Amino acid sequence: MKNIDSVFVTGGTGFIGSKLIEVLLSNNFNVHVLTRREYKSPLSGGDNRLHFHHYDGSASSVFDAMSISKPKIVFHLASLFVAEHQSKDIDKLIESNILLCTQLLEAMVMENVKFIVNATTCWKYYESNQYNPVNLYAASKKAAEDIVEYYHQAENIRYLNLVIFDTYGKGDTRRKFINILIDACDRSEDFLMSAGEQFINLTHVHDVAEAFVTAGTHLVEGRFQSGEFAIRGSEEFKLIDLALILVNLRKSNIKVIPGARAYRKREVMSVNSSIPTLPGWTSKRTIREEYALCDQD
Amino acid sequence: MKNIDSVFVTGGTGFIGSKLIEVLLSNNFNVHVLTRREYKSPLSGGDNRLHFHHYDGSASSVFDAMSISKPKIVFHLASLFVAEHQSKDIDKLIESNILLCTQLLEAMVMENVKFIVNATTCWKYYESNQYNPVNLYAASKKAAEDIVEYYHQAENIRYLNLVIFDTYGKGDTRRKFINILIDACDRSEDFLMSAGEQFINLTHVHDVAEAFVTAGTHLVEGRFQSGEFAIRGSEEFKLIDLALILVNLRKSNIKVIPGARAYRKREVMSVNSSIPTLPGWTSKRTIREEYALCDQD
Repeated sequence: MKNIDSVFVTGGTGFIGSKLIEVLLSNNFNVHVLTRREYKSPLSGGDNRLHFHHYDGSASSVFDAMSISKPKIVFHLASLFVAEHQSKDIDKLIESNILLCTQLLEAMVMENVKFIVNATTCWKYYESNQYNPVNLYAASKKAAEDIVEYYHQAENIRYLNLVIFDTYGKGDTRRKFINILIDACDRSEDFLMSAGEQFINLTHVHDVAEAFVTAGTHLVEGRFQSGEFAIRGSEEFKLIDLALILVNLRKSNIKVIPGARAYRKREVMSVNSSIPTLPGWTSKRTIREEYALCDQD
Repeated sequence: MKNIDSVFVTGGTGFIGSKLIEVLLSNNFNVHVLTRREYKSPLSGGDNRLHFHHYDGSASSVFDAMSISKPKIVFHLASLFVAEHQSKDIDKLIESNILLCTQLLEAMVMENVKFIVNATTCWKYYESNQYNPVNLYAASKKAAEDIVEYYHQAENIRYLNLVIFDTYGKGDTRRKFINILIDACDRSEDFLMSAGEQFINLTHVHDVAEAFVTAGTHLVEGRFQSGEFAIRGSEEFKLIDLALILVNLRKSNIKVIPGARAYRKREVMSVNSSIPTLPGWTSKRTIREEYALCDQD
């Protein structure tokens, strides 16, 4: 990729997507963002290399955005995450995680865009190296990959699926373990958790964003036609250990109470290690750097 | 399956689905049909074991139908078939072939329905024993199977995917090769076709309908928890040979002109033989019995 190229991003208002946009802009790309939200975003900040396109759910709104953007590559990060779905969620899950992906790929064919980096989840491999989705979210992401494979085979679109594990970083508003725990530390409230025997792999959001750029470069430079790689960080902990480390980093005295909550239905206990890590990329940032309170804090 | 049970059918107004309903009724099942169309169907014929439920595209219409029907098993045959899609087709393909399937499975969980026989297509294996979809239709069917697998793993729903090849039979209104050719014979018009080197496997629609009942029985009687089987008929021809055989059966003098049409993009040239045929089932009917004109005709 040359930094004069335009790129197209979905999920740009999300935690990873907004960091990716930051990294892309700092590398001087023209960044086109497809979003359901209002255009006025703290992201834009008057940067004239950043363009927003409205997605109203229709294929034509994606076709229009792609036609105006004429990107070199698409970074597809938009998804609807639901850990344990309810019946009311299913239409939205299919729409957000499969339909949009199909609309994007079709738009790519129309505009002769050849490359896509597609975010997917380690949760499609529940206790297994074979497809066994933890939840309907993971199943819908796998279903979308089947659609990607069609466009690869029939239309020669080149893709890399990036398997994302757990991500973290300041500014994360998701109700995830680390965030809830740090909130508890900050409020000096004891922390109730599951038995905590599950392993968790952590990658800093900035490292993840860099992985997308690396993957995009691999595609554009012809190193891969298609494939799946893991964005697996170098930090991996048992959840209970992570809790204790964080409490220590925050110089907190709260009690962590393992076993106070039940495991989730189909709780993921181990980190899939069978998917190769993305070549040319390693995680650099650590939870210590991110969360440790300095003496002056 | 006992013939006092209720069964639930989607795609009941289609070619295979309407034959399946006929076979199920003749076996004395209560048949509940989910359909987008008007209830008044030539199928019903005042049979009080046949019930229609309206599908308006919403999950709740599927939930309602399942709740009223309380079937032992679901036969899922509804699909939107498009050989070579256009951009305007993609939303409908995802909706018909993935969303409805998800809604059905969710409804099954809600009503504790444990078994589903799911129709799928040989076109997901283009020149391959591995997934390589011929077209977006086939990709969408494969994507739906990923959703089925989730409900199997997470909710213990038992399924069989039946891989359908080419089907035929009187009353078929689809614009398929055999029907177009017989029309040409009846109108004494010469017949333009592709080079005709592709192989085609043929199964009579009545045999296919019986395969669904056999598969359902396997599930209910616990012989399989999940799996994929081919509904592969005993008649397999090169397409040009099939054309000549049919012209002969129809006692027609029309000229068949191979090579007058181009092959389709990603034309399927061979019949996948790697998927095992459904145990306990064989095709019985032949194209000769179906299409041969008797001397008195």
